[in-house]
Amino acid sequence: MNKIEHIGIAVKNLEEANLTYQKILGISHYKTEKVESEGVLTSFFEVGESKIELLEATNPESAIARSILKRGEGIHHLAFGVADIKSEIERLKGEGFRLLNESPKKGADNKWVAFLHPKDGNGVLIELCQERDV
Amino acid sequence: MNKIEHIGIAVKNLEEANLTYQKILGISHYKTEKVESEGVLTSFFEVGESKIELLEATNPESAIARSILKRGEGIHHLAFGVADIKSEIERLKGEGFRLLNESPKKGADNKWVAFLHPKDGNGVLIELCQERDV
Repeated sequence: MNKIEHIGIAVKNLEEANLTYQKILGISHYKTEKVESEGVLTSFFEVGESKIELLEATNPESAIARSILKRGEGIHHLAFGVADIKSEIERLKGEGFRLLNESPKKGADNKWVAFLHPKDGNGVLIELCQERDV
Repeated sequence: MNKIEHIGIAVKNLEEANLTYQKILGISHYKTEKVESEGVLTSFFEVGESKIELLEATNPESAIARSILKRGEGIHHLAFGVADIKSEIERLKGEGFRLLNESPKKGADNKWVAFLHPKDGNGVLIELCQERDV
């Protein structure tokens, strides 16, 4: 894990949340991206070497819609940058961690991603992120 | 806000959580610190320019004990590094944000800290952190 790649925050209304975080961070979001496969619309802000990712559900069956229904808005996941996601997945499986997806899948912002089971991380949904060659 | 200073994670048992995060991050925590005023025992890991702060309650009336009782273990707060906490507090108050403490207070890891009301940050408890001269 070489850095905190981003913090994912589940929000009900992306447009309003963009304005809120623009005020908090003192900067504008630098892009919006729809991830059809995950049923989300995302927005990114840059803070140092990390990002804040706001996530609005575009589909009531999506993980973000279900999370908001269950727990309300708030931090949804914590993503670490890794150089080699496949070897990190193998290392963590060897340490006894359960993965929500054992094969990396395509995430937002041009990444390969994999998630650890939150029960294995003290209630934190941890994402591994590797830059994807375009 | 110049970087994500740390992510605070509320845990029930700091010793067990230290082992879990040592496995996830592939490194050991670099210090443990008790913050009497907040009723917590903390442990820090370094990841890039940021830190992971694990928090165990030492007092059943503490914010961490109440958070675990209400929501279980998980991410408790998101802390941003700032150069001048007093001017950031004034700026955010001017933007209409409510502060949980309007005067900076002493936090762990030699910092001045202040918290925004989570209702003003889409359910996220946001902390501002400024390095404190020793």
